[in-house]
Amino acid sequence: MAERPLHGGDPSVLRRLNSAATLRELRDGGESTLSGLANRVGLSRPTTEGVLGELIGRGLVAEVAPRPGSALGRPARRYRFRAEAGHALGIAVDAHRVRLLVTDLGGEVAGGHRAGLDPHARPDARIAAVRAAVKECLAAAGIGRASLRAVAAGTPGVVGPDGTVTRCAAVPGWEGVELGRELGRSFACPVLVENDANLAAMAERWRGAARAADDVVCVYAGLHTGAGALIGGRLHRGRWGAAGEIGMLPELGLRDTTAVLLTGGGPGPAASGAALAGLASAGPALDDAERVLAAAGRRDPAATEAVERLAARMSRGVAAMALALDPEMIVVGGPLAGAGAPLVGALRRHVPPLCLSPVRIEASELGDEAVGLGAVRLALDRIDEDLFRVDRAPGAAEPAGAPAEPGATESAGR
Amino acid sequence: MAERPLHGGDPSVLRRLNSAATLRELRDGGESTLSGLANRVGLSRPTTEGVLGELIGRGLVAEVAPRPGSALGRPARRYRFRAEAGHALGIAVDAHRVRLLVTDLGGEVAGGHRAGLDPHARPDARIAAVRAAVKECLAAAGIGRASLRAVAAGTPGVVGPDGTVTRCAAVPGWEGVELGRELGRSFACPVLVENDANLAAMAERWRGAARAADDVVCVYAGLHTGAGALIGGRLHRGRWGAAGEIGMLPELGLRDTTAVLLTGGGPGPAASGAALAGLASAGPALDDAERVLAAAGRRDPAATEAVERLAARMSRGVAAMALALDPEMIVVGGPLAGAGAPLVGALRRHVPPLCLSPVRIEASELGDEAVGLGAVRLALDRIDEDLFRVDRAPGAAEPAGAPAEPGATESAGR
Repeated sequence: MAERPLHGGDPSVLRRLNSAATLRELRDGGESTLSGLANRVGLSRPTTEGVLGELIGRGLVAEVAPRPGSALGRPARRYRFRAEAGHALGIAVDAHRVRLLVTDLGGEVAGGHRAGLDPHARPDARIAAVRAAVKECLAAAGIGRASLRAVAAGTPGVVGPDGTVTRCAAVPGWEGVELGRELGRSFACPVLVENDANLAAMAERWRGAARAADDVVCVYAGLHTGAGALIGGRLHRGRWGAAGEIGMLPELGLRDTTAVLLTGGGPGPAASGAALAGLASAGPALDDAERVLAAAGRRDPAATEAVERLAARMSRGVAAMALALDPEMIVVGGPLAGAGAPLVGALRRHVPPLCLSPVRIEASELGDEAVGLGAVRLALDRIDEDLFRVDRAPGAAEPAGAPAEPGATESAGR
Repeated sequence: MAERPLHGGDPSVLRRLNSAATLRELRDGGESTLSGLANRVGLSRPTTEGVLGELIGRGLVAEVAPRPGSALGRPARRYRFRAEAGHALGIAVDAHRVRLLVTDLGGEVAGGHRAGLDPHARPDARIAAVRAAVKECLAAAGIGRASLRAVAAGTPGVVGPDGTVTRCAAVPGWEGVELGRELGRSFACPVLVENDANLAAMAERWRGAARAADDVVCVYAGLHTGAGALIGGRLHRGRWGAAGEIGMLPELGLRDTTAVLLTGGGPGPAASGAALAGLASAGPALDDAERVLAAAGRRDPAATEAVERLAARMSRGVAAMALALDPEMIVVGGPLAGAGAPLVGALRRHVPPLCLSPVRIEASELGDEAVGLGAVRLALDRIDEDLFRVDRAPGAAEPAGAPAEPGATESAGR
């Protein structure tokens, strides 16, 4: 009557299955007594006791101090997931700034940091500034580097499967930088790199406007406008990490979006390219854009017209993503989606007439935290893979993408 | 030491799990002796014997006649999956013809049929003609209607989740037709309806150019050009069944593709719309298009120029799908992909310069069988759901989409 065993009869795999199931139950279902936990997981008491011993030994579970005076006699021991057993670091880096967010294993924010970057800095200087910001962030949060179990970084541009920035118009000199490998030198844990719009999409589903949705397009409107897509609840990166780069087609109006807002663009890509060239430093350009958006929010006629013009132009690209994927929801985020979201309101008028299906367009609720938050989510997913994998011993996981160099931890922050 | 049981302790679910595992092993792994099968599935001999008895009773498994003189003594009994226990019917219907394909449960082709349709026929006449074709197809193949376990139909246009054609430019009067419900009247089994490009994508992965790929875009070039996408090996329909309808944006050059090939199109959508209006009957237009493609294959200069012009125009739309999804492969199928595939060759020159990632473009190998074959695959997938489901008793499955009307079977073919 035996079912085909999932573990192929290997007792060490069975132990890991039991351990993973117990850990997941404690993390997702909250603290519990031994018997309660045994019952919830479907294991015997002695097996559960053994598993808990192992998890306590790995620092992932702790006994909870009994509540004082909570009961007569000896209270039953209770156990909890130690979310503080490790941390995830999310990094959002672009032309003019770096934003960091660090959380515990439960996704609770434990610290953060922001720093401006020189938009004209060379890649090595930019990476050094990121390292310095990481050092400052961890110091301020009182978190040791050894506590990090995974790090993820978001950047504009296309990120290849190996963590190299293969295409990037928004950050000078960034194309070809092996960002995963470079950042990997600073950490002993896995380091992942991902496109910023892709991370924004993950963040919106985790803690933003797309919490209930599985098929989501996130349009991330900044200097240029990119898009990321979740399909069936999972990030769709594409074969070369370039999914969502529909802005490559100039007629879809997603290039130079900030420049178009500020200058009105022109009849074609050449004109808008020229307009962009005049805006050498992305930082001030985005600041100016935010002023225009704020003015549109106050119904300033010229600013309102500029936003309408931009939305009319962008609507082709947003509609192209909507037509290609027919998602449940489109979330518009990024710097140009802020300031009362006049751009989102304008897109709600311009996009639906171009589409076949009812289109739901929502404004991001995450402001400029989206990319960093998505990076944390990606890092936490990577940590989950290690915590809940059953095909090899815990701790035997190797960093994906960027192999950590032994002793490289000390060299961080140079 | 017990794992949490997948079946929640319900013995009837355990029986169904065992039954499904045994059936799958026999179907996918080939015929077997009792002990061999028990070993392959990981069940005891008595359990396997019980399961086989049940599957034989359901007509899904048969004992194989021992090979004459193959061994001394009594040969061990062998069992096989009865692929002939049921059939799947695929229907491809468009403006000017209907093509049918019927296979057994193993996907082996058991029959087929084609018939021309009047492009100006009203929907009820078109559906009646489809019913007549089904009748003829089944009679010629000697397959009783009761043997059909699922039917799927492919059509141009957008098909809503309930099997209604919600948008369709290629078949006059087709918009709003409840095709799933209408065809459902003819069958006692589940009837599914799907967009033709989506089915072509499924066919290419099943038996065509995309056999090794999980993320595939299929561009289906006909009167208009549609697209279907598989993501992670599964069809991505989208929230309203409209994924891939990127041709809605006229600047992407996927509308009126046959007209553009024949007339050279014009400066804008209005001109090509007018060109199309002159081609009232889709059938002859496609025949003319195939003559142009054949001439281009013979290097006729005018025809070659017409194909180049069409490819240059279509390349925007093909690139838009490639940029949105960054698939492993783009398969170009449909009537315009035939005749030595000069269009595919031209797209291979025009599309890559518009894209960021290396783009792999392949010609369909399935000719005009793609949609019917994809429909059969969809029907077989639906049958698999019933055969291998474990959450309720076999046979308790209800048709998805179009509920069958009791006794409706006799009314088919009117």
